[in-house]
Amino acid sequence: MDQNSLNEICRIQLEMSGVHEGESVVVLSQGDERLDYADAFLNAGRTLGAKIYHMRLPTPQPGSGSWEVGISQLAQNAEAVEALKQADMVVDLIFLLFSPEQMAIQAAGARVLTAVEPAPLLARLMPSKEIRERVEVGAEILSKAKNMRITSPHGTDITYKLGVYPTISEYGYTDEPGRWDHWPAGFVFTGGADDGVDGQIVLGMGDVLLPFNSYVREPVTYTIEKGFVQDIRGGIEADLIKSYMDAFKDPRGNGMSHVGWGLDERANWHGLTQFPGGMGMELRSFYGNVMFSTGPNNELGGLNDTACHLDIPMRDCSLFLDDEPIVIDGDVVVKEMQPSS
Amino acid sequence: MDQNSLNEICRIQLEMSGVHEGESVVVLSQGDERLDYADAFLNAGRTLGAKIYHMRLPTPQPGSGSWEVGISQLAQNAEAVEALKQADMVVDLIFLLFSPEQMAIQAAGARVLTAVEPAPLLARLMPSKEIRERVEVGAEILSKAKNMRITSPHGTDITYKLGVYPTISEYGYTDEPGRWDHWPAGFVFTGGADDGVDGQIVLGMGDVLLPFNSYVREPVTYTIEKGFVQDIRGGIEADLIKSYMDAFKDPRGNGMSHVGWGLDERANWHGLTQFPGGMGMELRSFYGNVMFSTGPNNELGGLNDTACHLDIPMRDCSLFLDDEPIVIDGDVVVKEMQPSS
Amino acid sequence: MDQNSLNEICRIQLEMSGVHEGESVVVLSQGDERLDYADAFLNAGRTLGAKIYHMRLPTPQPGSGSWEVGISQLAQNAEAVEALKQADMVVDLIFLLFSPEQMAIQAAGARVLTAVEPAPLLARLMPSKEIRERVEVGAEILSKAKNMRITSPHGTDITYKLGVYPTISEYGYTDEPGRWDHWPAGFVFTGGADDGVDGQIVLGMGDVLLPFNSYVREPVTYTIEKGFVQDIRGGIEADLIKSYMDAFKDPRGNGMSHVGWGLDERANWHGLTQFPGGMGMELRSFYGNVMFSTGPNNELGGLNDTACHLDIPMRDCSLFLDDEPIVIDGDVVVKEMQPSS
Amino acid sequence: MDQNSLNEICRIQLEMSGVHEGESVVVLSQGDERLDYADAFLNAGRTLGAKIYHMRLPTPQPGSGSWEVGISQLAQNAEAVEALKQADMVVDLIFLLFSPEQMAIQAAGARVLTAVEPAPLLARLMPSKEIRERVEVGAEILSKAKNMRITSPHGTDITYKLGVYPTISEYGYTDEPGRWDHWPAGFVFTGGADDGVDGQIVLGMGDVLLPFNSYVREPVTYTIEKGFVQDIRGGIEADLIKSYMDAFKDPRGNGMSHVGWGLDERANWHGLTQFPGGMGMELRSFYGNVMFSTGPNNELGGLNDTACHLDIPMRDCSLFLDDEPIVIDGDVVVKEMQPSS
Amino acid sequence: MDQNSLNEICRIQLEMSGVHEGESVVVLSQGDERLDYADAFLNAGRTLGAKIYHMRLPTPQPGSGSWEVGISQLAQNAEAVEALKQADMVVDLIFLLFSPEQMAIQAAGARVLTAVEPAPLLARLMPSKEIRERVEVGAEILSKAKNMRITSPHGTDITYKLGVYPTISEYGYTDEPGRWDHWPAGFVFTGGADDGVDGQIVLGMGDVLLPFNSYVREPVTYTIEKGFVQDIRGGIEADLIKSYMDAFKDPRGNGMSHVGWGLDERANWHGLTQFPGGMGMELRSFYGNVMFSTGPNNELGGLNDTACHLDIPMRDCSLFLDDEPIVIDGDVVVKEMQPSS
Amino acid sequence: MDQNSLNEICRIQLEMSGVHEGESVVVLSQGDERLDYADAFLNAGRTLGAKIYHMRLPTPQPGSGSWEVGISQLAQNAEAVEALKQADMVVDLIFLLFSPEQMAIQAAGARVLTAVEPAPLLARLMPSKEIRERVEVGAEILSKAKNMRITSPHGTDITYKLGVYPTISEYGYTDEPGRWDHWPAGFVFTGGADDGVDGQIVLGMGDVLLPFNSYVREPVTYTIEKGFVQDIRGGIEADLIKSYMDAFKDPRGNGMSHVGWGLDERANWHGLTQFPGGMGMELRSFYGNVMFSTGPNNELGGLNDTACHLDIPMRDCSLFLDDEPIVIDGDVVVKEMQPSS
Repeated sequence: MDQNSLNEICRIQLEMSGVHEGESVVVLSQGDERLDYADAFLNAGRTLGAKIYHMRLPTPQPGSGSWEVGISQLAQNAEAVEALKQADMVVDLIFLLFSPEQMAIQAAGARVLTAVEPAPLLARLMPSKEIRERVEVGAEILSKAKNMRITSPHGTDITYKLGVYPTISEYGYTDEPGRWDHWPAGFVFTGGADDGVDGQIVLGMGDVLLPFNSYVREPVTYTIEKGFVQDIRGGIEADLIKSYMDAFKDPRGNGMSHVGWGLDERANWHGLTQFPGGMGMELRSFYGNVMFSTGPNNELGGLNDTACHLDIPMRDCSLFLDDEPIVIDGDVVVKEMQPSS
Repeated sequence: MDQNSLNEICRIQLEMSGVHEGESVVVLSQGDERLDYADAFLNAGRTLGAKIYHMRLPTPQPGSGSWEVGISQLAQNAEAVEALKQADMVVDLIFLLFSPEQMAIQAAGARVLTAVEPAPLLARLMPSKEIRERVEVGAEILSKAKNMRITSPHGTDITYKLGVYPTISEYGYTDEPGRWDHWPAGFVFTGGADDGVDGQIVLGMGDVLLPFNSYVREPVTYTIEKGFVQDIRGGIEADLIKSYMDAFKDPRGNGMSHVGWGLDERANWHGLTQFPGGMGMELRSFYGNVMFSTGPNNELGGLNDTACHLDIPMRDCSLFLDDEPIVIDGDVVVKEMQPSS
Repeated sequence: MDQNSLNEICRIQLEMSGVHEGESVVVLSQGDERLDYADAFLNAGRTLGAKIYHMRLPTPQPGSGSWEVGISQLAQNAEAVEALKQADMVVDLIFLLFSPEQMAIQAAGARVLTAVEPAPLLARLMPSKEIRERVEVGAEILSKAKNMRITSPHGTDITYKLGVYPTISEYGYTDEPGRWDHWPAGFVFTGGADDGVDGQIVLGMGDVLLPFNSYVREPVTYTIEKGFVQDIRGGIEADLIKSYMDAFKDPRGNGMSHVGWGLDERANWHGLTQFPGGMGMELRSFYGNVMFSTGPNNELGGLNDTACHLDIPMRDCSLFLDDEPIVIDGDVVVKEMQPSS
Repeated sequence: MDQNSLNEICRIQLEMSGVHEGESVVVLSQGDERLDYADAFLNAGRTLGAKIYHMRLPTPQPGSGSWEVGISQLAQNAEAVEALKQADMVVDLIFLLFSPEQMAIQAAGARVLTAVEPAPLLARLMPSKEIRERVEVGAEILSKAKNMRITSPHGTDITYKLGVYPTISEYGYTDEPGRWDHWPAGFVFTGGADDGVDGQIVLGMGDVLLPFNSYVREPVTYTIEKGFVQDIRGGIEADLIKSYMDAFKDPRGNGMSHVGWGLDERANWHGLTQFPGGMGMELRSFYGNVMFSTGPNNELGGLNDTACHLDIPMRDCSLFLDDEPIVIDGDVVVKEMQPSS
Repeated sequence: MDQNSLNEICRIQLEMSGVHEGESVVVLSQGDERLDYADAFLNAGRTLGAKIYHMRLPTPQPGSGSWEVGISQLAQNAEAVEALKQADMVVDLIFLLFSPEQMAIQAAGARVLTAVEPAPLLARLMPSKEIRERVEVGAEILSKAKNMRITSPHGTDITYKLGVYPTISEYGYTDEPGRWDHWPAGFVFTGGADDGVDGQIVLGMGDVLLPFNSYVREPVTYTIEKGFVQDIRGGIEADLIKSYMDAFKDPRGNGMSHVGWGLDERANWHGLTQFPGGMGMELRSFYGNVMFSTGPNNELGGLNDTACHLDIPMRDCSLFLDDEPIVIDGDVVVKEMQPSS
Repeated sequence: MDQNSLNEICRIQLEMSGVHEGESVVVLSQGDERLDYADAFLNAGRTLGAKIYHMRLPTPQPGSGSWEVGISQLAQNAEAVEALKQADMVVDLIFLLFSPEQMAIQAAGARVLTAVEPAPLLARLMPSKEIRERVEVGAEILSKAKNMRITSPHGTDITYKLGVYPTISEYGYTDEPGRWDHWPAGFVFTGGADDGVDGQIVLGMGDVLLPFNSYVREPVTYTIEKGFVQDIRGGIEADLIKSYMDAFKDPRGNGMSHVGWGLDERANWHGLTQFPGGMGMELRSFYGNVMFSTGPNNELGGLNDTACHLDIPMRDCSLFLDDEPIVIDGDVVVKEMQPSS
């Protein structure tokens, strides 16, 4: 995307995120990554009258090559964290999620918007107020539930005890102090009690493995007891998942993390055929997907802060909250969460 | 590819396309895309003594992210179209195919060459006179046929009524007024009568899905009646095709579009293992493939101008024209279309 | 200047130049020159709803290295000229002035804005309506005069017979069909009758030699008879002027061309100490300068189209029109042409 | 990776490779490829006090688009080869392996390090002395063996007669005159006698096809007699392998080339899910893989110098040398080759 | 200069400036300016174990085009200033001198190093401890003086009453809390009492006008009374100085600002013939120059914060402190300030 | 200049320099300098069928900032020098002149072409056979002379004893083994006997100081005895020359070096007003200039290899060889050296 179009969508993003004259905004990046995004946000902020600057961290030392969440250059730089805490809004171009630093920044009242996906995807899935409203309906319902059950024709049948962790909405922009969001997004999630997830998940053909950015072709069966994955069986995808998780050498990677469903009807399940790069936010958001995660739950306030994280959006599932149907066979059945047209 | 090599192959291209001293050539691009190609063509044109300039359209607004054919920035810019119509040749670096603007430009007598594939592929599949001759043999035969039947060991058995639409040859360069071609290419096609395509197509392992740039692994069965796809069944690929087509929300995407066969023995069926990017022109051209398409047929003069388009080259098919065998089990059986050595 | 600021000032420029929804605008450049300006104007035009494209000519063959006016790649490309004539406005990033092609484009009704100066200068001397008004006052007065006399304390005393050629105003933007302007600018000029310029000009310390972009340190005496320079005497600057003019091997370079005065109080005579590059438009515009030129007068409709052109803004001159004082000792004395504050 | 980090890892590489003050080093690249690597090595060499320069060959003419080994721009440039032979060390940024020129350079006493993989992979798999020691243990054992047998649960059972060709160790750096290595690497191999390889290899799910950079999903059965592949059967992967090999039109592509096993426990079998680009060195190195190759064996001193080369690392194999177990079910059983912790 | 060499000299700079493990450093720049310097300092800081980040301010709105000191984007951004105040060291790549923000940052204890000169000049005039020592000798002497008199063969005879303002040393690096320095530098200065500068300064041939970066060719006579310039007379340079100062429309530009002498024998008076760009720090530093300034004195704690500033290093002057000779005819006569060899 | 035009002029250069199929050419550069020139020559060489490569030396450590001739990165790199000696032709993009390494390369039979001037100047002053012929006429005459006397209206009267050193022609290309040339050039020179230059040179207004790239405005008087400058007197230019020479701290900088005259009527004395950058080759070449030099004469085989070098082309001189007039008042009077038209 050329710089002019990028400027335009970043300006719309900051407007939707409520940036206004006199607000203080910091754009955070590291090394040479996403300098074009930083320029677009600096320009957008200046245009909107904000006090804005770009904080650029040095390039981190080359790491393990896997997707390690929650580890950032900020960890060693208290002064930088302090400066970010002074801001009204932080635009995170690094992906700080799951880091204690992001939590400290939010706790200080700064809202945080993560923007790391490829620019054409940012543009195609621009946030909208309508999707926010539907996501917030979902969050409202989810936050009151005591129990979530997920089933599927492939054999999934699993229960999450709820009520311990808060509910998080993601709709792609953020205008409330201390709140985080990720552009683009359209889904809702919470976490089960630490020892309160039990049952079996069977991934079927076409379910999505993130961060592999690939579709499952052969069934993968997870056995979960008391909140931890006990066993993963299946074909090549099962082997790849296990090899990936083993490489972290961290048993907490088997913890059951967040769970929820997607609500953006513009996000395509077939997105990877058109757009294989990026973090897979389109796949997390597609309408009617049920997504579970393994690994850290510290972004929900939990204690698990392992760097080993997978997100797995599934098709065709049914999801019940306290036995009330929310998603049936991959379709959202609560009218207030359905697209208007 | 470095700029010097790019210059060299673009000069050969323009020479083969008959550009000569005093001819008027316009190189068309948009935004920041393919500025290096434009520079190479400007240089080539200047070297050959042509009157040449580069017309650069502004970056379009970010779109749907799918491959939407026939929609271009020219649609709103009559003066630009007028300028293109004055040229003897237009080098299209955008991909205007299926647009009314391209048709108007060709109707005014300008020949149009599309060049959007990655440069190494352009270089490897440089057009040749020999392939042109064989493609023209194919076009001659095809243009006289009344009926095309395609069968395959996987269960394909489909019939196209011919004679309504013209036959198009593609051999990678163009030296005739008003004619379009696409670099690289080596195939021939026409379209069935609007309500004259009936039968079943069964994609087998290794058949190619464009624009997914992937191989089929599980059979996909298309049921076609009166020129429209009625049903698509199969595994994950069938689901992806349906999800992709549904996203356009346009029933005309189910129309049966062009059909033909490939003649370039240098194009490799296994090309995607070496070269996954680009538009897949190598896959459209590989020797002996039978390719059918769904979606628009307006480039043949038809009325269907939907933006939803798939091209599907198949292996191992047999193709008969008025019962005469042209391709048998993925091999071309007409001697005049076979490579000389 | 970064691209975002450049976008901003180009948008303001096009707005002042009256570009609006549905107008047709062409941005003209050549080779790799000023691609950033072209991008800024494309973006500005798109934002304002104009039908806009960028016409990029091939790099010209390396030339003589001197500033040769009136010679352009367009000369050999009738189709390109034709396309430009269809536009409502042409943004010239090449410097076409004095070319027959620019005249043809203007004659067809397209307005032309030249923008070739360094971006920071464009920004600092943004056009203003107030300066336009004062320039137009000057043009009105000048267009009615029959005779111009210029004197200076250094010994200048020269007379131009007026009335043969039109008066041209330059104020840095253009919103009238067929009119040309140059960004930035703030001055007014006309030409003397072809054989109607007689007298002596004595350049003094601090007068400005364009295109040398330098100040005179030693007096230079021009003797002019019947519209032609007969003799140039003085120190090193005189030698440099003569060496420069001799290199063109064209006696028409001795013709007396346009003459007028500057009206932009924001333009600094000392500008070359801060900003030595560019074409010297700041120096042409500084308030109270009297500028004479040698070489071509075809932009006024004259027959002299030599490529040898010098512009020489002078300090401390007095200029009279039909004996009425307009500039006295480098100061404008007509109240309507003075800055408001 | 930013240039600073690249500099850092290249300096470590040259230090491990024993570059010291006064040594002569040449960095070899072609066209525009890997200029950043060249800069990093130049800087590293200068820092270490070496006499270093960068030899940049012109861009080769566009080739066949397949991975053709052993063909380089050096072939026509005796003076360049001569200059390389004068060096103590050559850093090869082109991939000269299998070329007679590389052999001549090594024969002259220059050590050669190939570095063509993506920089993040170079950084993650930095060479280590510990891995070198284990690789050298393997090489010692292998060099003494007369016979290698490989079996697998999928049906592989093949025997290589050894003793004809030398054993090669690869551990990612090189500090011995005339020795070649490839960064990154951690494996050992030799070749069977030209007519001394017989049996069957059955690729199973998850075995790796290089240069396709993909995993096998359906079994592929190779039948090998007297050192040549007689037959390849299976699903889509078998077809792709055959199509790829056929495109070279060279029967020597069926020759059985080198064979050995991997020893780097940091290299991940699942690496392609995180890092699909590059040459696949991570996959060649993962701990316990057994890799066989087809095509050229001239780097071992053999006569086969075909450009058609495949490397196929396999999981879960058992490998015996003179009936002694070395790898059992994909796990290395010789203690001295196991990681210390 | 290539990035590797730049890294090297910036690392040496930070080392000399006492940056060590655990210190907090911020590199400050704006827009696209000096990103390469920022990268070099980030790398240097990381190498030295500092907690470092880059604060990048948005591009300022295009300004007046003159050198306006003391005006910065920080003025409107209290949060950014606050973050800078938390640092142990700020590397200023903008030129904040004379701004209240820089004073606040220093007051908070952060040391500030300005680095804006062209990289080859930074490299050639690397700071040295020996020059620091001699500069500190000068500062010691100057800080105790009550009166400074400057004379020259051209007619300069002027007296500054001292004792009101502090003495500042500049030696090109800074390792003391709250102290500012400028790389490169080698001189010492203080300011006269606000109404305590009287006499005449006559610039002679070869004296240097900054920011014009040019040599005086014709004498310029300043008449100074009670700390203010009353009159400037002379040739073209006098006119340029007056035109420059008038453009600020600020009478405080006539205030007499700092005064002192240069001590770096490596800095060349003829430097502008080799190196015309940059801010002229070489000219401020050349050994034996006596430099006076007009305009702001707020960096000394004075009240004059006009944006109109000139620095004028002079050759061949004699400078006396309380009648003791310090510089005689452009040569430093105090042994402790002379170069050792 | 765009890369395409640069390619074109470099191809013409290599053709004129006799590069042909099978010849060996090395393009030599260092660091990031002139990579575009290197690319153009690589492309040109490849096009002409030469065996060509680019040798890129590491960036030298930052130096003194003055123009130090004869010092190169090659000095420490015997293997690189050896490789250059193997070539038929070396294209020097660094400026090796006066280095022992260049002499060794030439002695080995390689011809050397230096190309370091800005590309537009290279293009404007393309070498021509006609100028070569006239330069060779001059060289023939000069090589036979025993004595050279130069006079001028300003007071120059100096005598060079000739016959000790060879005569060098420079005409901008080179097709003879072991010969050096510099693109662009058009002049001839030799050196006086080491102790055989006596008299006075008086620079007048408009004479040219290289490497200052400026014109003399005030007379400068050199007194020369027994081949050494004894005294330099005058105004600011005399001071700058002395300051420049003093900075080298090398008395051999006062040696009288080469002397000769220019013959290219396309080279303009006023060139610096249009083109201030570069090394000043246009000024060395302008028709009728008489140029003397101070500093090294080792390129003539002399012993003086100081790094302190000035070239000073003068206007309006008369030059006699053995009392025969060659140049009179800045005009060449030998018919065979005059331009044909």
